[in-house]
Amino acid sequence: MTDLAAQSRVLSTLRGQRIETASWAYGNSGTRFKVFAQQGVPRDPYEKIADAATVHRFTGVAPTVALHIPWDKVDDYADLARHAADLGIALGTINANVFQDDDYKLGSVTNADPAVRRKAIGHLLECVDIMDATGSRDLKLWFSDGTNYPGQDDVRTRQDRLAEALRETYDRLGPDQRMLLEYKLFEPAFYMTDVPDWGTAYLHCTQLGERAQVVIDTGHHAPGTNIEFIVAMLLRAGRLGGFDFNSRFYADDDLMVGSADPFQLFRIMHEIVLAGGLEASAGIAYMLDQCHNIEPKIPAVIRSVMNVQEATAKALLVDHAALAAAQQAGDVLEANAALMDAYHTDVRPMLRELREDMGLDPDPIAAYRRSGYFEKICEERAQGQAAGWGA
Amino acid sequence: MTDLAAQSRVLSTLRGQRIETASWAYGNSGTRFKVFAQQGVPRDPYEKIADAATVHRFTGVAPTVALHIPWDKVDDYADLARHAADLGIALGTINANVFQDDDYKLGSVTNADPAVRRKAIGHLLECVDIMDATGSRDLKLWFSDGTNYPGQDDVRTRQDRLAEALRETYDRLGPDQRMLLEYKLFEPAFYMTDVPDWGTAYLHCTQLGERAQVVIDTGHHAPGTNIEFIVAMLLRAGRLGGFDFNSRFYADDDLMVGSADPFQLFRIMHEIVLAGGLEASAGIAYMLDQCHNIEPKIPAVIRSVMNVQEATAKALLVDHAALAAAQQAGDVLEANAALMDAYHTDVRPMLRELREDMGLDPDPIAAYRRSGYFEKICEERAQGQAAGWGA
Amino acid sequence: MTDLAAQSRVLSTLRGQRIETASWAYGNSGTRFKVFAQQGVPRDPYEKIADAATVHRFTGVAPTVALHIPWDKVDDYADLARHAADLGIALGTINANVFQDDDYKLGSVTNADPAVRRKAIGHLLECVDIMDATGSRDLKLWFSDGTNYPGQDDVRTRQDRLAEALRETYDRLGPDQRMLLEYKLFEPAFYMTDVPDWGTAYLHCTQLGERAQVVIDTGHHAPGTNIEFIVAMLLRAGRLGGFDFNSRFYADDDLMVGSADPFQLFRIMHEIVLAGGLEASAGIAYMLDQCHNIEPKIPAVIRSVMNVQEATAKALLVDHAALAAAQQAGDVLEANAALMDAYHTDVRPMLRELREDMGLDPDPIAAYRRSGYFEKICEERAQGQAAGWGA
Amino acid sequence: MTDLAAQSRVLSTLRGQRIETASWAYGNSGTRFKVFAQQGVPRDPYEKIADAATVHRFTGVAPTVALHIPWDKVDDYADLARHAADLGIALGTINANVFQDDDYKLGSVTNADPAVRRKAIGHLLECVDIMDATGSRDLKLWFSDGTNYPGQDDVRTRQDRLAEALRETYDRLGPDQRMLLEYKLFEPAFYMTDVPDWGTAYLHCTQLGERAQVVIDTGHHAPGTNIEFIVAMLLRAGRLGGFDFNSRFYADDDLMVGSADPFQLFRIMHEIVLAGGLEASAGIAYMLDQCHNIEPKIPAVIRSVMNVQEATAKALLVDHAALAAAQQAGDVLEANAALMDAYHTDVRPMLRELREDMGLDPDPIAAYRRSGYFEKICEERAQGQAAGWGA
Repeated sequence: MTDLAAQSRVLSTLRGQRIETASWAYGNSGTRFKVFAQQGVPRDPYEKIADAATVHRFTGVAPTVALHIPWDKVDDYADLARHAADLGIALGTINANVFQDDDYKLGSVTNADPAVRRKAIGHLLECVDIMDATGSRDLKLWFSDGTNYPGQDDVRTRQDRLAEALRETYDRLGPDQRMLLEYKLFEPAFYMTDVPDWGTAYLHCTQLGERAQVVIDTGHHAPGTNIEFIVAMLLRAGRLGGFDFNSRFYADDDLMVGSADPFQLFRIMHEIVLAGGLEASAGIAYMLDQCHNIEPKIPAVIRSVMNVQEATAKALLVDHAALAAAQQAGDVLEANAALMDAYHTDVRPMLRELREDMGLDPDPIAAYRRSGYFEKICEERAQGQAAGWGA
Repeated sequence: MTDLAAQSRVLSTLRGQRIETASWAYGNSGTRFKVFAQQGVPRDPYEKIADAATVHRFTGVAPTVALHIPWDKVDDYADLARHAADLGIALGTINANVFQDDDYKLGSVTNADPAVRRKAIGHLLECVDIMDATGSRDLKLWFSDGTNYPGQDDVRTRQDRLAEALRETYDRLGPDQRMLLEYKLFEPAFYMTDVPDWGTAYLHCTQLGERAQVVIDTGHHAPGTNIEFIVAMLLRAGRLGGFDFNSRFYADDDLMVGSADPFQLFRIMHEIVLAGGLEASAGIAYMLDQCHNIEPKIPAVIRSVMNVQEATAKALLVDHAALAAAQQAGDVLEANAALMDAYHTDVRPMLRELREDMGLDPDPIAAYRRSGYFEKICEERAQGQAAGWGA
Repeated sequence: MTDLAAQSRVLSTLRGQRIETASWAYGNSGTRFKVFAQQGVPRDPYEKIADAATVHRFTGVAPTVALHIPWDKVDDYADLARHAADLGIALGTINANVFQDDDYKLGSVTNADPAVRRKAIGHLLECVDIMDATGSRDLKLWFSDGTNYPGQDDVRTRQDRLAEALRETYDRLGPDQRMLLEYKLFEPAFYMTDVPDWGTAYLHCTQLGERAQVVIDTGHHAPGTNIEFIVAMLLRAGRLGGFDFNSRFYADDDLMVGSADPFQLFRIMHEIVLAGGLEASAGIAYMLDQCHNIEPKIPAVIRSVMNVQEATAKALLVDHAALAAAQQAGDVLEANAALMDAYHTDVRPMLRELREDMGLDPDPIAAYRRSGYFEKICEERAQGQAAGWGA
Repeated sequence: MTDLAAQSRVLSTLRGQRIETASWAYGNSGTRFKVFAQQGVPRDPYEKIADAATVHRFTGVAPTVALHIPWDKVDDYADLARHAADLGIALGTINANVFQDDDYKLGSVTNADPAVRRKAIGHLLECVDIMDATGSRDLKLWFSDGTNYPGQDDVRTRQDRLAEALRETYDRLGPDQRMLLEYKLFEPAFYMTDVPDWGTAYLHCTQLGERAQVVIDTGHHAPGTNIEFIVAMLLRAGRLGGFDFNSRFYADDDLMVGSADPFQLFRIMHEIVLAGGLEASAGIAYMLDQCHNIEPKIPAVIRSVMNVQEATAKALLVDHAALAAAQQAGDVLEANAALMDAYHTDVRPMLRELREDMGLDPDPIAAYRRSGYFEKICEERAQGQAAGWGA
């Protein structure tokens, strides 16, 4: 294949890439110490969708937005979907929330109290109802369930309760709907988390059925965890449902993806590319799950989308034949060099070209800044209650 | 020395031990995901002090309570001090807060904006004014200052600004007042924290003067950090000002001290005992800084006080002569065994005896539960706004 | 049940406990920086077995010794087994070694070179032959396989090779033999390890069959990993084959079990006791895998056996009814207290009593020191080449 | 300044860069599990120097080689220096070794036994004698001293012994000689290391005098440590003596610098550039300290030198004016973007150009491979004992 053909293939793949943004990323967020309010923050799901559509307008590869229930609860989801469509995007993954009701202090689906478990499962089923209304394919489940102190509750009993709740929810899904089960090492549970690692999520998914898939949040691992290894393992097992992209230096920092360790993001995308995971048929959802605590939210999301694009472009440039040959020959330095060669390439010119081909501004951040959108929302949304994690 | 004499010395030391509780531990707290409200939570500084006095009433070793400004701001500190005295305790350390005003989004004393720095320093000076009013010895400074993204601000310039603020504050202290400088690895800053480790705190303290001392929060370290080593280093350098006790499995979990790794707490107290750090002349402040997110607060504080007592009692039981002899002989197993022998001892009978000697119930938690205090506050405080980190 | 009946039950369980020691723990070991030679170190498998028998003589609960092939290769395993029997113990688990031949520089069963894979599988099959000769039940597999640099080899291809090797070895096992698959986060591979976590080991075991079980080495986890959670998960899934006990502050330090975090060891044993894992029918192998780099080896192993006994005794003392009641009631502090009450108990008197009942000296370390065994081996083994990891 | 002028300044700085390689990197190394022998490995210090000279021949920026005593002990250092000069390089830093003698099992300068301390100090003084002979400026001290078990020895007493040894050694230095004190979190000590962090090294250096400086080994930190922060702190305090460059994913993996986290290396070089640390007057030693366990050693060192060059080039490209303006304006995204813009630049063309300007092959690895040097040493060194960490 000529270089030109290769480049054309890369550009074509990048053109087809889809990255879902999260409605809550446009609202206020913070740490337990303080939520710093920002200007122009949306006040309801309709405004969040408008912001998501703005990101898509400037990037061209973010055509869906994930909802969080109940934060994005509305009376008429068909109307919300129409609103999204009018702005050029669609509603995406439905994220359940069983961690913010006072009843869930000691757990939701794993709570010792059957009434609380019932309530939590009820919420999960309601989320599937909403999926039916929005046409969403994926139900994403993250459970904050766990314990803070040794002895607080029984590990195995809680797993039994979890399995029961997952089963009832899974059975409620339609044939084209999927369950994405997320794991997280810690926070808000500080001693034991009920779904802390990929092993636990994988174990439950294999017991549920083929439409139960693991979702990897890149910030949810112990220090030193090789995330791309997990990516490869789940791809090999046919259980990788998607990503919650973000980045971190310490714990679940929820920084912009690619900002803390761009080389790691590249390695993740390299495993994806190797396994054909960018093809739509692979069914992998690429989502952002970030908190823009101190930086303006819309340009931060745009930057994050661009970071994923750049990592993907580099991964697509890896010379697989050279890599495989060096690997087979046991040439450690050459094999590493084949990977690094792609990583060191500056792919920004190629992505600017792609955007121009797509009729977009080659510099999405600058275009957004020039667009006057930020000034407009600051004015329009000056009154009222800004959305945050609670609403 | 006979065993009896030794035991009597241990009991005498334990009787003189002083552990300061924190006003904010009695209010609501949580994670960024949710603050679960509890019953009977104080609504103002007066009620927090009443709860702190209750802890002292049942433990006998917690005669002071730390305040947090502005959370505990009142018009008349003399009146607040009288209120405390009426209940049998005194006001303790003043904790400054320069992390919750919208101006501090990008830092307080290290902010690039001189007006923000001025405001932050103003708050620190105001805290010293309050110390003058309350008669507090210690000003505790924890700065959340830092950056979330590489390049966001300049590391060395921020250190210069920090040094300037510390200098101005230090110079404002009276001759019997001290500055306790706390360090923390991360959170809420997620890339770079301006005072992340003991080295940084130590460096600034040595440049300020003898009354600038380092405070160790046991939850503020990187994984694998040997905390008792830092304790020993600061003791040797004459720069250990005190502790913020709590415990953690992961990050700054703020669990009850001794609940995650009781052996570590024992090792810390062993270094303290070895260096004479329990004597009042050592000037080390023993404080609790915890968040009782899911467990009832007052009994959790009582349990924490007891955990410190138990670790201290075990540390006091170490046979220093046998330990030193084994160390000098290079007998690794015997030296370790000398330490472990004390650790494995069940010191609860001794502490029950001590409490009876002090006219207290031997089981403080049970006594508290029987006292009706919790029922009383639940009723009295049913209305109004519970205190939390914001107030 | 009366307290006396309970205590009798506890003692009876402790009397039946079995802890396997490792032949290589008696030989010299060290770090990459230096192997410090010790006196009296065995020179061959026969002498290692003599040391293991000595540990059993003084503890009464260590009746088997694990072998490492080829370090413990002999011409006549029946003779070796007779030697062990003469000394009162038996041969235990067979540990394969595919990490010390120059051919394995880039991996053994996952090597890109099929000839190297063939050789490695050949060794695994040879280990089963040895098991047939020794009558061992368990084949323990730890693979150092992995890569040091991104790109060095392909993650999924290596998993395919691994699966193939495991399949061939598993199929060679007799109906009463088991495969124990160990995982390890890192070292000696420094970028990607082929079996780095319990999820990977579990996935392979489920694909092999029921006699493939996961073994947990307590030092092989990322910082912050909740090991007792993994214990509970594997118990619930019927896939916990055994433990390699040791302890660590940092990485795979291989210190004496219980010396770094005795509370963690207790929590692990608590999960075991809750699930009935101490019963012989549970089929869980309790093994020590430690390196006594600087402390004398035999007393260090004795101390380690005692540490496991103490943690087990405490776990057996947990009041399960009180614990479950507090858990069901959502009483966080009481549930935690129920666990801590057992942990804080000094079980050493009970274990001394047990030993006297078993006709042993209540203080095994002191008895060993008095026995003259150490002086004897120092003299007998003064000449010749001490055994180490290489032999 | 025009872009051309800027580029010329960058090239001029890169041309003046100096990176010291380590004699022991050319010898065999490994983990505690296995040292895999390689072909063509030097058998004595003269051959190590020949390899170092080869690296310089192809890179042009590695004109000195560090020695390790006693591994590189020779009878006539003047002759060794002449040999180096003949090959176009010079002898550099002298590295002391007080961790491989049997006497040092429980410590060297911190050992409880005064005779062992005396011996260790004697070695340090001997190293200064060697510096006098070689004309080396820097004495690099890394102490493996520490303990494996709590209680094994006394933390503060060991610090006293350390201070004494450092004092005696420092006082022996000539006016143009420096002491570089290295810290390391753990390994081979597994509970407490006597110089575990920068705070400890800094404290001792300030007590010694101005020519005592801290050296940062990039692999010697706890997980999550912000290394560039430490770089900035030591630069600000005038105490950064140099680097031991390498990289790691887990512990002290000693991989090729820049191979695990190239973005981190860039951030480190950015702090260096900001503070003028590349200028010779800054006196910062840039050294490689790596173990090429599985990859061929000479090309691995060449690659490492190139990685440092690339990170430096990117750091030199940062637009400091734009960065400072965004920082001052509190524009988080723009400030971060200013840094990332330089990082994302592909600097390899610029470095190829530089090499051509310097009369070198633009692709040092390819040139080395073509040179026949490897074939030559494989043949010449086929007999005899390859050098390793022990010799």
